[in-house]
Amino acid sequence: MVEMNRQWRLARRPARDVTPDCFEWVEDPIEPLEAGQVRVRNHWLSLDPYMRGRMDEARSYAPPQALGEVMQGGTAGEVVESRHADFKAGDEVVGQLGWQAYANAPARELRRIDTRRVPMQAWLGAVGMPGVTAWYGVNDILSPQPGQTLVVSAASGAVGSVVGQLARAKGARVVGIGGGTEKCRIVVGEFGFDACVDYKAGNLAGDLDRALDGARIDRLFENVGGVCLDACLARMNTFGRIAVCGLISGYNGEPIALGNVRSILVNRLQVQGFIISDHMDRWAPALAELAELAATGRLRWRETVAEGLERAPEAFIGLLKGRNLGKQLVRI
Amino acid sequence: MVEMNRQWRLARRPARDVTPDCFEWVEDPIEPLEAGQVRVRNHWLSLDPYMRGRMDEARSYAPPQALGEVMQGGTAGEVVESRHADFKAGDEVVGQLGWQAYANAPARELRRIDTRRVPMQAWLGAVGMPGVTAWYGVNDILSPQPGQTLVVSAASGAVGSVVGQLARAKGARVVGIGGGTEKCRIVVGEFGFDACVDYKAGNLAGDLDRALDGARIDRLFENVGGVCLDACLARMNTFGRIAVCGLISGYNGEPIALGNVRSILVNRLQVQGFIISDHMDRWAPALAELAELAATGRLRWRETVAEGLERAPEAFIGLLKGRNLGKQLVRI
Repeated sequence: MVEMNRQWRLARRPARDVTPDCFEWVEDPIEPLEAGQVRVRNHWLSLDPYMRGRMDEARSYAPPQALGEVMQGGTAGEVVESRHADFKAGDEVVGQLGWQAYANAPARELRRIDTRRVPMQAWLGAVGMPGVTAWYGVNDILSPQPGQTLVVSAASGAVGSVVGQLARAKGARVVGIGGGTEKCRIVVGEFGFDACVDYKAGNLAGDLDRALDGARIDRLFENVGGVCLDACLARMNTFGRIAVCGLISGYNGEPIALGNVRSILVNRLQVQGFIISDHMDRWAPALAELAELAATGRLRWRETVAEGLERAPEAFIGLLKGRNLGKQLVRI
Repeated sequence: MVEMNRQWRLARRPARDVTPDCFEWVEDPIEPLEAGQVRVRNHWLSLDPYMRGRMDEARSYAPPQALGEVMQGGTAGEVVESRHADFKAGDEVVGQLGWQAYANAPARELRRIDTRRVPMQAWLGAVGMPGVTAWYGVNDILSPQPGQTLVVSAASGAVGSVVGQLARAKGARVVGIGGGTEKCRIVVGEFGFDACVDYKAGNLAGDLDRALDGARIDRLFENVGGVCLDACLARMNTFGRIAVCGLISGYNGEPIALGNVRSILVNRLQVQGFIISDHMDRWAPALAELAELAATGRLRWRETVAEGLERAPEAFIGLLKGRNLGKQLVRI
């Protein structure tokens, strides 16, 4: 009996907002396993903002997702069959196996994970790509010093929540920007930020001034862009640094023009765009540190879980609208 | 008989554009020379875009120019009297002695210059602050590699013209952006740039594409901001660098919003604002190299000279409107 696979493929590119008809549900028999390949049953799918960029044809840091192909995405799961000496059935692994229940993957594209101290799905979040992204931005770009003020947008998200906790451990005063009172409550109460500004409350400038408590911004970790970034630019300190990790407020083509460009010159800012896949040499030390912090309770996170692969498109659309709290996952 | 001084002082801050009534002409007797001071007869006054920022009260990298005080500015001249052992009458010096014919200055604020191989006024231009600014941006921020494409705006100006010549000597293909056909002709014909785009011709995007000849921009030295910077942002190459040296298109409060912010993320750009006065340790090597290049004809420049201190305000207003070609000077 041939086992059936279930997949979401890219059916069409979004005109602007992502809609359910961008995706096509396919059930097909699983291909036979070739020599050197490993078959994985995916238990968790990671949904991340970068996927929105790949759905467009515009020039970006990765080639566009091909039409008719399985949606790309990070996954965590269990080896069910192996034709490679490095893996055996029962091994737990992460990989970029896409929006599907099963995948046959070359062994070199899988990484074994240890779920005894850190749960499987955290290897897609705080101890996965988002965590490493936060770690790289904090350590290798921003390098906040004790007493400095660091601001991070999308503060309750998979990346932002880790940024703030790492920066605070280095002695920075950390201010988050989040969307909604509930998110801000968790950013301060659970993630331990010093303050959090709800940009949806309608008074971003005044609320940000209050949260900064008279300080200017020494370090900014930017995930959102648009009005959030512009408000922060106006409040940067001399020799400040900005790590540009995401600009989600513009991912559907919304204008994200910046007015306060003069701050770059006047404050001699360093602005650095980055993509974590350019820095593969930093994953090993980052993951080692993040796993230790997570296992010992010093790194906290939140998850929003969509139950069932069928719900992946809806969950992804929600992520782009900020409906998730913390890491958006799909339990397959 | 007491010698009389002539000065321009700041009478009022500009509402938007600088107007002649922002300045007040004063003739006063020169103060007696105190111990440790040196009296200089200024022969040349440098006019520079940064002066516009100091006329406002807004937060900037230097304190605002005080109302009622002599306008600040770089000068070159001759010592006429000295009460300090390091200087004697006849010495030629540069300093920040302001918009005036004479000044009594502490010896530590003067630097002796050698006019045997480089004319006095060039120590305010290609072999002065603008030249060092260009040198620092090219060497310490942009570091263009052979075969890379470098773009510089305000290409015929005191800074831009040196940027292009230094970058070309390092093997980069250099494209200038200038205002007007005459400026562009000189940028290519005299300064040796590979191409120059006239942003006033009304087809910046298309003309820039043609000048780039299929390449993307690896290095951008930005003096102007606004539409010039936005057009370049859209054409940056992966891992490109931008040195933000000036944003003259916005110095009178004009909007200089940027639309193509996404390029910073997608292309993983490094954007660095800088002010040359933060890097005093680099002046000596920069000046040594620039003086040698100038003396041997390998560094060229243009000057626009206003004859007489009386004409300084008019010349400064012209500079802000781009009426000068090359370094704007006043012969006092």
